[in-house]
Amino acid sequence: MTDGYFERAPHSGRPAVIGAIEAGGTKFVCGIGDDNGSIHDSISFPTGRPEETLRRAIDYFSESGVKAIGVGSFGPIDLRPESRTYGFVTTTPKPGWNGFDFLGALRGSFGVPCGWDTDVNAAAYGEAIWGAARGLDSCVYYTIGTGVGIGVYAEGRLLHGLLHPEGGHMRLRRHPDDGFAGVCPYHGDCLEGMASGPALEARWGTKGHELAEDHPAWEMEAHYIAESVASAILLLSPRRVILGGGVMQQQHLLPLIRRKAADILNGYVAAPELAEGLDDYIVAPGLGTQSGLRGALALGIRALERSGEQAAASE
Amino acid sequence: MTDGYFERAPHSGRPAVIGAIEAGGTKFVCGIGDDNGSIHDSISFPTGRPEETLRRAIDYFSESGVKAIGVGSFGPIDLRPESRTYGFVTTTPKPGWNGFDFLGALRGSFGVPCGWDTDVNAAAYGEAIWGAARGLDSCVYYTIGTGVGIGVYAEGRLLHGLLHPEGGHMRLRRHPDDGFAGVCPYHGDCLEGMASGPALEARWGTKGHELAEDHPAWEMEAHYIAESVASAILLLSPRRVILGGGVMQQQHLLPLIRRKAADILNGYVAAPELAEGLDDYIVAPGLGTQSGLRGALALGIRALERSGEQAAASE
Repeated sequence: MTDGYFERAPHSGRPAVIGAIEAGGTKFVCGIGDDNGSIHDSISFPTGRPEETLRRAIDYFSESGVKAIGVGSFGPIDLRPESRTYGFVTTTPKPGWNGFDFLGALRGSFGVPCGWDTDVNAAAYGEAIWGAARGLDSCVYYTIGTGVGIGVYAEGRLLHGLLHPEGGHMRLRRHPDDGFAGVCPYHGDCLEGMASGPALEARWGTKGHELAEDHPAWEMEAHYIAESVASAILLLSPRRVILGGGVMQQQHLLPLIRRKAADILNGYVAAPELAEGLDDYIVAPGLGTQSGLRGALALGIRALERSGEQAAASE
Repeated sequence: MTDGYFERAPHSGRPAVIGAIEAGGTKFVCGIGDDNGSIHDSISFPTGRPEETLRRAIDYFSESGVKAIGVGSFGPIDLRPESRTYGFVTTTPKPGWNGFDFLGALRGSFGVPCGWDTDVNAAAYGEAIWGAARGLDSCVYYTIGTGVGIGVYAEGRLLHGLLHPEGGHMRLRRHPDDGFAGVCPYHGDCLEGMASGPALEARWGTKGHELAEDHPAWEMEAHYIAESVASAILLLSPRRVILGGGVMQQQHLLPLIRRKAADILNGYVAAPELAEGLDDYIVAPGLGTQSGLRGALALGIRALERSGEQAAASE
């Protein structure tokens, strides 16, 4: 069984109501959709302490009749079904969230199947089903914003392994003109430390969206992102690389990143997808800013389908 | 269906004869084994031009009664079943091999199911089934020798994606004392360019095995390997990292690499497997120098099993 159900045509019966939560470190987005993939309603609110934040989410879904809920959460989170702390947020410095049983709180309130993955894996999944990687069995999804996160969909499955990818903390070659120490409290000058929104602001003393298109900030920004994208291509061999998040709202960044990634790879990966520039290979999200929420919806749909399969198998 | 069949107990019937080919860029190793996982006989010979090299392999298996053959090949190779050139070696500079139909030559001679993957993916697979990652659903396998290759087993499957991983060509932060330009004809100072056997020899003017344990070469060698291992951990989140190949025969390298990888990660990946040093996490191959051949055997066994499943399904 793969994670993908996208080969299936939308069904024509009455669609089931599905809940979706994109649980970011600064903002929660909750949506109500259906198992044909549409979102009908959504709200968002700041991420506060866990009890009050979950209370708002639970209140939002309470009258909706959701048959399943999918969650894409900030992390680190526990994704191992066999673990005692499956469904928990783990070692985050975010007040109150370390060791919080996120999935347990939802299940306790609704008693419906719940899907559970990282925010970036959810976004990768949404893009693989309905977005820029539709119909492909692999993609890498980046969010570059307050932090940098990387979700991985490979061989038709969301990649977890030991924990889940934490590619935002890769160490990279420095830009030759860059003396900035970086802002990551763990690593200083890792990808997140050098290329997140806060890194841009700390390095240049101005928020990213206030920097002109020809400011040297962008060439440097593209350098770090391209270095990491090239490594992701070489290690993961994805069928598409999707770059999302607030920083990527700067439309001029994407062509710069493509050019630098092509320079780094230098023709080594001999696939037709990489031969003619990278315009169709390193791309913006197909779902705009909805990758995470739609991906959470897809996780909810998958949870409902799996519970149906399990019920059928045990009959 | 996952790639793993290792949950299965060895069967007690008469074992089927399975052929295995570890097709390296400098050396071919051919083995005859069985579907319980044992190798009974093997030969090796230099990799020459494709026709003569395949002729020797085919002669070796001709009287053996193999029911399937598994191949782990040097690359790049075409792994896409839907491709017109599936089973071909693709863009290698190795004389005669560019565009050679490796799998077609085997199938034409034997008409048995054939497994086909990269040499390093085969080694990762062998290690996941019988070696240092036995029973785990993911591992990353490095060979560090004439070249540097990285095989990836993730979520119970060998990772292919667009092509297959080419992690040996990742670009890495330079060691601060290193002015060496690197030997990779594509990238100069990528991992292979800086840490392969030929890179060691070109940098120090001496073959690796002739350098004393306390030579500064090893600290520098460990730096590049650890940089790439840390990136692989952050991007792939494997349950184990296995370091093989000729350069890793230097036993003192492994503890140096573990220490440097731990420094780079700096406690960020909060998994118990990474908490207490990395002695059980970054390890030598469990199959010694047999990872590739045993992995090729496993690919052959899998091909036989799949052909049986397909035959059963079509009955």
